Amino acid sequence: MSIVLDPWGHIAIENYERLLVEFGIRPIDEVLNSYIINHKYFTRRVIFGHRDFNQWLNAYQSGGKVAVLTGLMPSGDPHLGTAMVYEELRFFQEKGVFVKMAIADAEAYAVRREDRDSVVKKGLDFIAHALAWGINPDNAEFYYQTSMDSSYYRLIQLFSRKVSEAEMKAIYGDLSPAKIMAALTQAADILHLQLDEYGGFKYVLVPVGVDQDPHLRLTRDLADRFENELALKRPASIYHKLLRGLDGGKMSKSRPEYAIHLTDPPDLAEKKLMNALTGGRATAEEQRRLGGEPWKCIVFELYTYHLASDENELREVYNDCVSGRVLCGQCKRRAAEKLRALLVEHQKRYYDFRNNVEKYVEKPSF
Amino acid sequence: MSIVLDPWGHIAIENYERLLVEFGIRPIDEVLNSYIINHKYFTRRVIFGHRDFNQWLNAYQSGGKVAVLTGLMPSGDPHLGTAMVYEELRFFQEKGVFVKMAIADAEAYAVRREDRDSVVKKGLDFIAHALAWGINPDNAEFYYQTSMDSSYYRLIQLFSRKVSEAEMKAIYGDLSPAKIMAALTQAADILHLQLDEYGGFKYVLVPVGVDQDPHLRLTRDLADRFENELALKRPASIYHKLLRGLDGGKMSKSRPEYAIHLTDPPDLAEKKLMNALTGGRATAEEQRRLGGEPWKCIVFELYTYHLASDENELREVYNDCVSGRVLCGQCKRRAAEKLRALLVEHQKRYYDFRNNVEKYVEKPSF
Repeated sequence: MSIVLDPWGHIAIENYERLLVEFGIRPIDEVLNSYIINHKYFTRRVIFGHRDFNQWLNAYQSGGKVAVLTGLMPSGDPHLGTAMVYEELRFFQEKGVFVKMAIADAEAYAVRREDRDSVVKKGLDFIAHALAWGINPDNAEFYYQTSMDSSYYRLIQLFSRKVSEAEMKAIYGDLSPAKIMAALTQAADILHLQLDEYGGFKYVLVPVGVDQDPHLRLTRDLADRFENELALKRPASIYHKLLRGLDGGKMSKSRPEYAIHLTDPPDLAEKKLMNALTGGRATAEEQRRLGGEPWKCIVFELYTYHLASDENELREVYNDCVSGRVLCGQCKRRAAEKLRALLVEHQKRYYDFRNNVEKYVEKPSF
Repeated sequence: MSIVLDPWGHIAIENYERLLVEFGIRPIDEVLNSYIINHKYFTRRVIFGHRDFNQWLNAYQSGGKVAVLTGLMPSGDPHLGTAMVYEELRFFQEKGVFVKMAIADAEAYAVRREDRDSVVKKGLDFIAHALAWGINPDNAEFYYQTSMDSSYYRLIQLFSRKVSEAEMKAIYGDLSPAKIMAALTQAADILHLQLDEYGGFKYVLVPVGVDQDPHLRLTRDLADRFENELALKRPASIYHKLLRGLDGGKMSKSRPEYAIHLTDPPDLAEKKLMNALTGGRATAEEQRRLGGEPWKCIVFELYTYHLASDENELREVYNDCVSGRVLCGQCKRRAAEKLRALLVEHQKRYYDFRNNVEKYVEKPSF
């Protein structure tokens, strides 16, 4: 049975290997020899797959024009899953790459059916968090989909000609006018940076959670079909695994109780973490004897994705667990402390940026 | 069996009465007592139906803010059917109303699959003809759909949320991403003039051929659904019959041999007219005895829509025909002379405007 990834859904993905086979996403291992690949997400295979990332790296390393673009849906509150995208942008920016972040306000309104005012306000919030996470506004741009100018929208209009309803159904499953608009808009997000109006061709890399791959597949097809007419080229993309919710399901803005939000009061965040699903055994005795199972453990996932800053530390947490030397309670307390420090530091920066975030983006007029 | 009007189709409409019943278009007769209604298209029932035109007239007559907007598909060459829209705009402008004309370049490209460059060039052509027909640029605006700014496009994005695939299928029949985009874009064409960004609310009247009514039905529904959120109001609309082709089918840009184009050399136009389908009898003897049938005659239609300037003249043509006094050859020669005069005059003005038309519109950058 073939599977359809739903970029608007809330499912947990069980088997990342299968995505490689099913959709032709390439394993990240094949490009890990590049010197730029020195981020923990690569080392730890949090970013596990890619399309054309090797080519993008070649362009980058040979001094070609490159950029990184991704988008965020301004609904719910940014959480540690959202922060993975910030972290990716921050990393590439540190490497000297211009980064651009779309606020998918059109999509949040039309597909997620969020209130328009709240979507626009949330957008500011998502940007303030990005800045607080360390993205430097001097080499970054933020925009709302509905504040873009006509050449971006012209793309959407043109794209609509060269894709059929059947093709979109094969990629997205159920369709609606809102989903069709949203999908074509995402394609314009990804491809507009190549237009003369936006500084001319640059090779764009899109770092996203793997649930967003359907948009990349559509966008690649559209780029091919507009190669002659608009000289568009396919984007490259890298895919990270989705940080699971604290109960082992998907960490989703729509299930706030199972997510750690970037604005959670540190006490609350600690408490949530202390209740998270672990890879612990039924009894302490059993765990001392058999060791824990970190590959099942959300707390270990948090270490992997955010809390462990270097590989030695992560290895230690792992070894302490599987050897039965450190039990879940102690391990969680250590994680909780690190989480508190991360949130306290982030929130201080966030509340500073929150007050003047409007100067970093043009807000839609309605 | 219910019928679906296809705004992108090329069918001839046989029975206008049925449209009144089937779609709830109101007969124009109910508003003909207004003093503004002194144009031949009303008198002769070329404009045969409307929606809310009485309310629009009330707004106009009581000094409310009003506007007239219509759109043209820049494909093929403007012909005498296209000129009906120009004539309607000209008439309302003469009454002091601001008029706006959309060049549906997005739609021509995506739905009609016209070449993009040619669509943009044709747009200029359609505007030059509008000016030549007598539309005064001082109280008119022309625009390409793909040159509009973000608040117009924001409407399209928002609209996509509040209409389902099933509803659009019921209105349009077969759908495609291109048709969905085109339909939502038309709704933005019609409704954007109410936005603050475009000067705030005004009551918009849309004069169109009746084959465009599906867009009006969709737009009215969308206006209702956005009444609270964006304070949008339904537009009013008036519907003209479609000038038939010279063979009795639809006069369409895609059947050039059966249309009289505004740039046809007068000799060619005359020749086409001389070959047109008439309401003549099998023999001259029979026609003298029984009279002709002007209600079947394309030449009489040309008199009605364009060539007869006053009601006495039109009545004379009619009476000459049904009485058998004037046969088709003579009648056609009289029509051909009038057509030649119209084209010669129009083309002189057209070629003047053609040279500087770019100053009246912002051309899309690609």
